[in-house]
Amino acid sequence: MERVVIKLTGKVFSVENVKTLAELADVILKYRGSGVKIAVVVGGGETARKYISMASEAGVSLGWQDILGIGASRLNAMLLSAMLGDHAYYPVPTRIEDFIHAWNLDKIAVGGGLQPGQSTNAVAASLAELLNVELLINATTVDGVYDKDPKIEPNASVLRELTIRDLRKVLTQSYVPGRYELLDPVALSIIERARLQVVFINAFKPYMLKSVLSGERVYGSWVRPE
Amino acid sequence: MERVVIKLTGKVFSVENVKTLAELADVILKYRGSGVKIAVVVGGGETARKYISMASEAGVSLGWQDILGIGASRLNAMLLSAMLGDHAYYPVPTRIEDFIHAWNLDKIAVGGGLQPGQSTNAVAASLAELLNVELLINATTVDGVYDKDPKIEPNASVLRELTIRDLRKVLTQSYVPGRYELLDPVALSIIERARLQVVFINAFKPYMLKSVLSGERVYGSWVRPE
Amino acid sequence: MERVVIKLTGKVFSVENVKTLAELADVILKYRGSGVKIAVVVGGGETARKYISMASEAGVSLGWQDILGIGASRLNAMLLSAMLGDHAYYPVPTRIEDFIHAWNLDKIAVGGGLQPGQSTNAVAASLAELLNVELLINATTVDGVYDKDPKIEPNASVLRELTIRDLRKVLTQSYVPGRYELLDPVALSIIERARLQVVFINAFKPYMLKSVLSGERVYGSWVRPE
Amino acid sequence: MERVVIKLTGKVFSVENVKTLAELADVILKYRGSGVKIAVVVGGGETARKYISMASEAGVSLGWQDILGIGASRLNAMLLSAMLGDHAYYPVPTRIEDFIHAWNLDKIAVGGGLQPGQSTNAVAASLAELLNVELLINATTVDGVYDKDPKIEPNASVLRELTIRDLRKVLTQSYVPGRYELLDPVALSIIERARLQVVFINAFKPYMLKSVLSGERVYGSWVRPE
Amino acid sequence: MERVVIKLTGKVFSVENVKTLAELADVILKYRGSGVKIAVVVGGGETARKYISMASEAGVSLGWQDILGIGASRLNAMLLSAMLGDHAYYPVPTRIEDFIHAWNLDKIAVGGGLQPGQSTNAVAASLAELLNVELLINATTVDGVYDKDPKIEPNASVLRELTIRDLRKVLTQSYVPGRYELLDPVALSIIERARLQVVFINAFKPYMLKSVLSGERVYGSWVRPE
Amino acid sequence: MERVVIKLTGKVFSVENVKTLAELADVILKYRGSGVKIAVVVGGGETARKYISMASEAGVSLGWQDILGIGASRLNAMLLSAMLGDHAYYPVPTRIEDFIHAWNLDKIAVGGGLQPGQSTNAVAASLAELLNVELLINATTVDGVYDKDPKIEPNASVLRELTIRDLRKVLTQSYVPGRYELLDPVALSIIERARLQVVFINAFKPYMLKSVLSGERVYGSWVRPE
Repeated sequence: MERVVIKLTGKVFSVENVKTLAELADVILKYRGSGVKIAVVVGGGETARKYISMASEAGVSLGWQDILGIGASRLNAMLLSAMLGDHAYYPVPTRIEDFIHAWNLDKIAVGGGLQPGQSTNAVAASLAELLNVELLINATTVDGVYDKDPKIEPNASVLRELTIRDLRKVLTQSYVPGRYELLDPVALSIIERARLQVVFINAFKPYMLKSVLSGERVYGSWVRPE
Repeated sequence: MERVVIKLTGKVFSVENVKTLAELADVILKYRGSGVKIAVVVGGGETARKYISMASEAGVSLGWQDILGIGASRLNAMLLSAMLGDHAYYPVPTRIEDFIHAWNLDKIAVGGGLQPGQSTNAVAASLAELLNVELLINATTVDGVYDKDPKIEPNASVLRELTIRDLRKVLTQSYVPGRYELLDPVALSIIERARLQVVFINAFKPYMLKSVLSGERVYGSWVRPE
Repeated sequence: MERVVIKLTGKVFSVENVKTLAELADVILKYRGSGVKIAVVVGGGETARKYISMASEAGVSLGWQDILGIGASRLNAMLLSAMLGDHAYYPVPTRIEDFIHAWNLDKIAVGGGLQPGQSTNAVAASLAELLNVELLINATTVDGVYDKDPKIEPNASVLRELTIRDLRKVLTQSYVPGRYELLDPVALSIIERARLQVVFINAFKPYMLKSVLSGERVYGSWVRPE
Repeated sequence: MERVVIKLTGKVFSVENVKTLAELADVILKYRGSGVKIAVVVGGGETARKYISMASEAGVSLGWQDILGIGASRLNAMLLSAMLGDHAYYPVPTRIEDFIHAWNLDKIAVGGGLQPGQSTNAVAASLAELLNVELLINATTVDGVYDKDPKIEPNASVLRELTIRDLRKVLTQSYVPGRYELLDPVALSIIERARLQVVFINAFKPYMLKSVLSGERVYGSWVRPE
Repeated sequence: MERVVIKLTGKVFSVENVKTLAELADVILKYRGSGVKIAVVVGGGETARKYISMASEAGVSLGWQDILGIGASRLNAMLLSAMLGDHAYYPVPTRIEDFIHAWNLDKIAVGGGLQPGQSTNAVAASLAELLNVELLINATTVDGVYDKDPKIEPNASVLRELTIRDLRKVLTQSYVPGRYELLDPVALSIIERARLQVVFINAFKPYMLKSVLSGERVYGSWVRPE
Repeated sequence: MERVVIKLTGKVFSVENVKTLAELADVILKYRGSGVKIAVVVGGGETARKYISMASEAGVSLGWQDILGIGASRLNAMLLSAMLGDHAYYPVPTRIEDFIHAWNLDKIAVGGGLQPGQSTNAVAASLAELLNVELLINATTVDGVYDKDPKIEPNASVLRELTIRDLRKVLTQSYVPGRYELLDPVALSIIERARLQVVFINAFKPYMLKSVLSGERVYGSWVRPE
């Protein structure tokens, strides 16, 4: 791999999972050191949920709740940046232009959300398009895209190779709507139009990230354009 | 009206239509003067199309083409800002935060697009939600939302009152996809979740804007939440 | 009161206390509405502690831990800003200059920490000096400055009036070091050199803030310069 | 060549000339790749003229017309930046400090105008002085500095070598004032005081730029300090 | 007067003249208070000369010497801003856009130079054009424009009324070049094209500023467009 | 040495000492060239004193006087940056984040103060902690830390090696308070908590800086953590 964007679930930014996060940081540093250009978009995780819930209780609009979620994702990005030391782009990017700026300067930008009404998945997809990367790595809470909902069906199995059209089918048809959201429609559209290659891996298994960055196709669900 | 966001089609930013633009600026200033808080989001129009076409010919990605379209919309915003004189927020906002900043300072922010993969309609809807406005005015190239495609059906007529659900039906079912895009799905979703009131008017008939800002419901298609 | 800086404990930014926070926001809006100029500095609270603890576990330096605490305090500031609507200065100030900027534009700036190695109390004191306010309101977790440590001595009572010299004595001599820190030495020095008037109140009793903003001296510990 | 500033005419930013522009981008990338430090200042071209004309018709002052021309030149700069990919400094510089910043970080800054009442030629000259370059390349619409006005005199020929004093004479004496402006007086003064070497070439003949960047003196008019 | 730009000589920013500066600040505040919109551009004065001289001795280019002079003028602007308290726009504007921003927000912007190779007089003239002011007040070290060089001719007298054409004649013909520079050619050109009214007064006689701001024409040299 | 922060006394920024400053710039460039990462914090020196004195005479608060001192230190930083050419980070950092940004991009950031009520020594210490440097070089007006006050005691001698505890003793006990301030308490606390190694050298003897950067321990007072 030479150019990748990583979307990292916000769920890894918690006291319980900080060791996992540190391992992920080490993997990123290792491959950065061997010449891979990397940008990272992180989710808001439990901090986002907390602030959104406070805002909601205080009667603040959904748009502002999004803004607070973005703020939380940026705080997560600060933490990961701190772990990356000299290799991080700092301060945390707050506009898509900042990500491009960082990329061109060969630093690892770690950012969060950018706009209300736009998911961090959409940010990552947009970035992957703009930076013309080989691979968008979606590090989430499960091992990949399942053929059935793994929470309900015991025999659900990870789809190892699928086309973007397959992915769209899985996302829109197989599951209870709103329950299992690997990707929102906006992110999906950008991935389609940019003909991006995407892999879904489990963020809680850092060896998967290592494997993907080393160019292997051993883990995860690999989605190719058609 | 006390608080409105105006989405203004980029088509009005052309040498032929500059007098219309100046009339629109006068209407905005007049109602600002009588206490209406106003934010404006403008499209990229022919300048956007020109730069996107140049970028496309030079092999630049769709994401970067979006960025050039955003740049063009901001140039349009500069022109309208210049016409608004002391009442404009300047420089032109480039982040959603800048729009909020301007609004809270009681100046008229005129901006364009913000992010690749996001329409200026989505920006306007998001802003309307964040600024908690009474009305989102969509000043476009036609007199409102038609019951049939006015380019094909001679007896198409403007729908004067409709619910957001009606609007969704019209947008998704009636017309050839991609031909008649008053609103993209993202903008529509924000309008729905924020329960915004929207009116579609013709930007080329500035008396329509005047009428709407004065609180009348004489012109345009009025969309209400359910 | 015409010009005040409020230092608000970060402890009020939690799911349990969000109603208290909303009440404080209402009080601030009410007095802003009647012409009081207000700037607010908020602490990092439990979110700061969480991120500092994660950073510490990941081996990040104390300086960077401070930066994460600052980030958390800014997230708190975003939440309170969202509650203040049009009256807030947005985006959240990140430099002392931004606070001055907001103040001169007559908006309520709500910010957090600014620099590693500097407390939010020191920020608030510095701001109070620069903005030449009448009163620095320190809204903390207790009813005021006690003559003895209220956690140990059952008969500790709030000192209603004290000089800055008395305050220094209480802070430096009476308590176990590091246990009961109403003010750090830097904040105290700024308060002394600027001859600021300070009142300590309980943030969890919003009527105290109301009382102080209305010009009463019924609640809290009032500290006067000598 | 090791350090150059290129002033590129805005006329090349048009649908008809986009292939030429792409060739120029390739030349710039090629020499950047072999170690030449490059900064580029582009003119506003036909987009500038269009917006200035709209602004003029709407009664906007000459100062604001300049600002719109600057906006147009920056849109041109965005397009060229997009073509330069990872090597570009992004976002487009809007202050002289941004150009210096980009230069020191070894990226190709492509910018436009900076201030009303100041030509892009003056910006390029000022930049060439600040960055202490070997050569200011003025890529314009003609092959160089002519001894007579080529539009009137059929036997006008390009002056291959001239001193800055010669250039001043040509610019101020030979032609109808205002008709043939290779350089304005401010740009000329900076070139003189900084004792810059300048070459005028034809932007529409990209091999000229290639030749100059490779260190040849085969094409263009070469102006040396005295 | 309702809208004015003041160009203030940097010579008043010295330990000896600080009382004069404070008086000027009081005059500005007084008229701001009664509704006059004011922007101020200050020169670099003795601090600029000092840093330019140090830079020169260290072999730094003339362009960078200009930048240091600009830095010094901004330090002067900070001092005057501090004196203006809540009425100042802060932080000090560093781009022409910042001045416009401040003006539209009804605060007094006090800035210095903006670009190498551009005088603070040119900044003031450009600003006066963009802000569409009634009067550009040039507060310098002498009582106005003299008919002869007052340093040489004992019977030189202040010209009370002159046209811009007269001014151009006086500036270009009467004096030893470089000795007596009230206005550089760029500033003069902007004043001409924008048809600005200008008055030259003595900054060291604050009653002159007071008189001019109150609408009197008792002091100074008044220059009118033709 | 591989990573150092240099605190440089503002006293070296004067017409008399500009040659010394140029020599220091040469030393910094030389070691930067051989791979040492360097950040520099400069004091305000005589310019700071001048503006503080003007502000004081004009009745401006101590907080604003600090801001003017910070402005002066930044002007000094501009001068040194200009001397460092392409290797400098420009524009001058004004937030701690800018210093980190510059460091990660491998440029020499030269900045001044950041906040009222915070010394440039505290900025340097905080930076040294955040950048995780090997050594904080304090280049001051004397050869190191003396065992007695060298202005009073003729036989005072430089302490060559001391612990941070020794340093605290020397700073707090030996001298007349306020007379001899090598380090303020905030700077000292950061140095302690970060367990930084510090060396005090004489800025007016550039060979001392050279010696220290080359890894020698021949000159200065070396302070080690305990």
